[in-house]
Amino acid sequence: MSSEFGTNIKYSIFGQSHGCAVGVLVDRFPAGEEINFDELKKFLDRRKPGQGDLTTKRSESDEPVFLSGLNEKNRTCGAPLCAIIENHDTRSGDYAEISDRPRPGHADYTAYIKYKGHADLRGGGHFSGRLTAPLCIAGGIALQILERRGVSISAKLIEAGGAKGEEIFNAIKEASLTGNSVGGIVECAIDYPQKFSGLGEPMFDGVESQLAKVLFGIPAVKGVEFGAGFEAARMSGVQNNDAFRINDSGEVFTLTNNAGGILGGITNGMPIVFRVAFKPTPSISINQKTVSLAERKNAEISVRGRHDPCVALRAVPVVEAAAACVMLDMISVL
Amino acid sequence: MSSEFGTNIKYSIFGQSHGCAVGVLVDRFPAGEEINFDELKKFLDRRKPGQGDLTTKRSESDEPVFLSGLNEKNRTCGAPLCAIIENHDTRSGDYAEISDRPRPGHADYTAYIKYKGHADLRGGGHFSGRLTAPLCIAGGIALQILERRGVSISAKLIEAGGAKGEEIFNAIKEASLTGNSVGGIVECAIDYPQKFSGLGEPMFDGVESQLAKVLFGIPAVKGVEFGAGFEAARMSGVQNNDAFRINDSGEVFTLTNNAGGILGGITNGMPIVFRVAFKPTPSISINQKTVSLAERKNAEISVRGRHDPCVALRAVPVVEAAAACVMLDMISVL
Amino acid sequence: MSSEFGTNIKYSIFGQSHGCAVGVLVDRFPAGEEINFDELKKFLDRRKPGQGDLTTKRSESDEPVFLSGLNEKNRTCGAPLCAIIENHDTRSGDYAEISDRPRPGHADYTAYIKYKGHADLRGGGHFSGRLTAPLCIAGGIALQILERRGVSISAKLIEAGGAKGEEIFNAIKEASLTGNSVGGIVECAIDYPQKFSGLGEPMFDGVESQLAKVLFGIPAVKGVEFGAGFEAARMSGVQNNDAFRINDSGEVFTLTNNAGGILGGITNGMPIVFRVAFKPTPSISINQKTVSLAERKNAEISVRGRHDPCVALRAVPVVEAAAACVMLDMISVL
Amino acid sequence: MSSEFGTNIKYSIFGQSHGCAVGVLVDRFPAGEEINFDELKKFLDRRKPGQGDLTTKRSESDEPVFLSGLNEKNRTCGAPLCAIIENHDTRSGDYAEISDRPRPGHADYTAYIKYKGHADLRGGGHFSGRLTAPLCIAGGIALQILERRGVSISAKLIEAGGAKGEEIFNAIKEASLTGNSVGGIVECAIDYPQKFSGLGEPMFDGVESQLAKVLFGIPAVKGVEFGAGFEAARMSGVQNNDAFRINDSGEVFTLTNNAGGILGGITNGMPIVFRVAFKPTPSISINQKTVSLAERKNAEISVRGRHDPCVALRAVPVVEAAAACVMLDMISVL
Repeated sequence: MSSEFGTNIKYSIFGQSHGCAVGVLVDRFPAGEEINFDELKKFLDRRKPGQGDLTTKRSESDEPVFLSGLNEKNRTCGAPLCAIIENHDTRSGDYAEISDRPRPGHADYTAYIKYKGHADLRGGGHFSGRLTAPLCIAGGIALQILERRGVSISAKLIEAGGAKGEEIFNAIKEASLTGNSVGGIVECAIDYPQKFSGLGEPMFDGVESQLAKVLFGIPAVKGVEFGAGFEAARMSGVQNNDAFRINDSGEVFTLTNNAGGILGGITNGMPIVFRVAFKPTPSISINQKTVSLAERKNAEISVRGRHDPCVALRAVPVVEAAAACVMLDMISVL
Repeated sequence: MSSEFGTNIKYSIFGQSHGCAVGVLVDRFPAGEEINFDELKKFLDRRKPGQGDLTTKRSESDEPVFLSGLNEKNRTCGAPLCAIIENHDTRSGDYAEISDRPRPGHADYTAYIKYKGHADLRGGGHFSGRLTAPLCIAGGIALQILERRGVSISAKLIEAGGAKGEEIFNAIKEASLTGNSVGGIVECAIDYPQKFSGLGEPMFDGVESQLAKVLFGIPAVKGVEFGAGFEAARMSGVQNNDAFRINDSGEVFTLTNNAGGILGGITNGMPIVFRVAFKPTPSISINQKTVSLAERKNAEISVRGRHDPCVALRAVPVVEAAAACVMLDMISVL
Repeated sequence: MSSEFGTNIKYSIFGQSHGCAVGVLVDRFPAGEEINFDELKKFLDRRKPGQGDLTTKRSESDEPVFLSGLNEKNRTCGAPLCAIIENHDTRSGDYAEISDRPRPGHADYTAYIKYKGHADLRGGGHFSGRLTAPLCIAGGIALQILERRGVSISAKLIEAGGAKGEEIFNAIKEASLTGNSVGGIVECAIDYPQKFSGLGEPMFDGVESQLAKVLFGIPAVKGVEFGAGFEAARMSGVQNNDAFRINDSGEVFTLTNNAGGILGGITNGMPIVFRVAFKPTPSISINQKTVSLAERKNAEISVRGRHDPCVALRAVPVVEAAAACVMLDMISVL
Repeated sequence: MSSEFGTNIKYSIFGQSHGCAVGVLVDRFPAGEEINFDELKKFLDRRKPGQGDLTTKRSESDEPVFLSGLNEKNRTCGAPLCAIIENHDTRSGDYAEISDRPRPGHADYTAYIKYKGHADLRGGGHFSGRLTAPLCIAGGIALQILERRGVSISAKLIEAGGAKGEEIFNAIKEASLTGNSVGGIVECAIDYPQKFSGLGEPMFDGVESQLAKVLFGIPAVKGVEFGAGFEAARMSGVQNNDAFRINDSGEVFTLTNNAGGILGGITNGMPIVFRVAFKPTPSISINQKTVSLAERKNAEISVRGRHDPCVALRAVPVVEAAAACVMLDMISVL
């Protein structure tokens, strides 16, 4: 299924930016799990727009409604869990032009081609960043379940528009003021108890494959690397190999973690560490070259409306959500 | 399935480095396709070791034997195609030590943990780079079928041990002489006719997700990026967005290709471009810190035997093979 | 996914009998398809209860709400389609007893075991016949799309409680009056143009395998047979083999259709014919032997509430819906 | 994948009747399992032809060769297990005619249509009953693993050509003498410890769905029923419902087993019981009506060669093998 991932637990995302609702269907969450709805709400709020100078002004309530999957005590009951967020503040008028003039950097053109003119392009339709909200519902619940099993996941924005550390927010603000946008890099670490060494399956279902498949499904992601990643390509074997040692409790660990916790696709007990590269928000208020699909000739477009100057900023909890969904899927067989 | 990938066409890899054979099972290659066995052999020879100073001396004949999937005229017949390569030159003695002392950077330790002591660790077992040979059988055939449909795929080593261009081979040679190894980056481009615009499915089955899942299944891969990739994270929207234009034949194209041919996970008609980061070969002749699993104490290991100073070098056709398998899978629905 | 089926098109059913809603998520319906909502409503009404003496009095509005998958012109847009039916007339009080005393013939006991006491057992939860309503939404749409491609599907109740023809309704009525219930057999035929010969994949994805997997997912189904079915086991080869002939248009057909249109799992151009055996509704008003799970001792139960004396009667459109979903899935690759 | 089944363990069958070999690839057999090769050979011999008056004279050695999946101690090592049987006694000359004149009741015509003339039709190609041999390798191993976990599976031929009990073999012999053939019914029971109550997933991955999908993949199967099966359709609820009782050990059981051990698709602790209807062997020595595909006109064919008068007879171990593969798949998540 195209908007689905997972092996033991299946996560399916649906909805369009300006349709009735966006939602997620999760099959096989473990039964009997309590959901802390307040904590979930706080997690969803982290990706909510309209929170400051640096994000879009679109007001999204992001209030999840649970249609199925809970029993009378509000615990997971084993049946497929479906949760939706209704779409309210949709200004489709903003997007009238784009059905003819695809926005550079967006999926307007490819959706038009793929669905032979029938795609719902309003607000990016099914390709909108809005679709990461239901991913965060599933991921927020997964994070709670994982926490009970000793797994913690934490991501942060480590770079934006080439700036690092304190400079990041200035770089974003500057882009915002000029109607431009910047890309960014999110780093994520997953800590887990030694008993979860051995996760992942050989070759194409290794931890890297499973995570990358999902991470590249987040809009705007153009690169994924684990441990030393691309830098490993510039190292020698002596530098890159992580030496094994044994600690006082008799547990095996490595002195460095260039492998990002993964050898042969399988977890080795060290934290799983990866980085995700986000391209700059394609929506910018500056005039851009495009084409008129109806007239088959060159044209121009200026994308109006409310936009994030840096999608990577709001993507931080989304990366955590994706990681949590995959991690819970992998440990659910043990 | 763990060592399987593909949606419409399924590719399953099996075998262990020092077992009877390694092989591939492909289900649903299009029927009626001729296989040019000479061309296939040439393709397999590109990943063959023992060809010069820069690769391991292990002699692999890599002669594929077809067990099923061809009709009496040696064309694909629609039934699952199974091809194997028998293992001959296996010196298991070289690896006796590693069942107790896992080699840093290899999957010995994780395989040991995952399979509770029952893994076949000889020569890396199912985690060996040897498993890329059957992937190349499938990919070599896929490349021939794709060529008939106007698709061409070409990869090259663009960086090794930090060196680029002419310097690459010196960097590898130097590592080889000191018993060390280096990582590298392989870049690959897929050219295809405009009718294959629209490939890929939204979200988690986008072209990037599908390719990344398979590429991270190649041993030693630690990073994958598309188009401008991680560099896009350092750019502004104005720089990164690819402007649309229309050519004299009325075809839409983009002035730049920072998207690597993919918008919203879907092909836009421009070449698919991606880069794959390989870590340095973990096998080095230099003493390394490890542990004794039996005695639960710190130990040392020096990996003897025949090894590549740079796996990325032999991985070039493997990347092409992986790309071909995925590409054929995607176009087979049209 | 447990409540999902399909290969090219995926159909996922969710919801519990007494939860907020039941629904279906369909991924990859062809884009650009119009939905005739009146016709769909009529189709859903065919499985609606409360229509006469022979069905349960539970009032179900069965009004589908579309959450996603349609564009601004109400045509399928290529994105996953989600439709739900809200649950209103739920009397959970009727079912208070069953969490301790599983009803014979129902899934109460197995759901209790499987989900370790966390299952939502109200009204049968996710195992309720109510879950066939969203299947009928997907199937009703599939039937409309199939009709445009020349495929027609028609099922009927050919036997109930051992009675055939005119006697069927008396048999059901009699069971109803005594608080008892009867089983039944539904026969279904799929007619399709010759261009859809060749559907189905060898071995475990043959037409029979694909249909049977879905049909056995309908609550109360205990047997499925194709063509002559079990009767074929009592025939000789001379009797059972369907002789091939060619008609005036040069089309191949068979003189008989004992194969039910399927040879080697693949359609041969003749109508696909199958029969589905439904057990009697397990809910009966007569006292039955059960156990108390809390007290671990023998007990009795009398199932109150509104029930169908013959589920097979309302299952007729459900069988059509299941067949339509599978058929559309199979032809969507051509 | 078309010739693949299984969720946690994947079983893929490949090969053609007159190709190099037939084989099976099994991914994720539990690691560390010993294989008793003598016992496996005995199991394979049960489906071997040429053993008496009642089966084809084709001599098949059925000696499995293991290409992968075992470690140096011949135990399963966690990596995909591939085993093949080479084809020797193939008389392709026998089948020269059928590429033009499809045999009634065989897959010749549908394979021809599906693969547009490229199918390997020799001996039935990938649709041949020969493909049940590799299924029996996988199933034979699965039976051994299941036995260690307390699960036993046993099938028998309960009907052939309408005859039951002692009369069965006369019915088959009579058909054989006249160049005709007969169908038959195989009944299978799976006994398992109470801890395996709760197997199966709701709706389309219930035990019935999973078993039926595989059983209908066995050539010649036209019907599958569980417990009372089609007979349940003729019963009343009072008769059909299995009353729950508790035994002295505090275990729940049912007084009857009309459900065949399955409620709501989930095992209830009682034996899983099902019956499989096989049509008569389509190969008969009597002249039959067919068509010439090249000349597009009516024709006749008489199928020469060695054939079984009743495929159901040799199918008994095949049904056990199929059941074992599915059962091991289901318990492997616990």
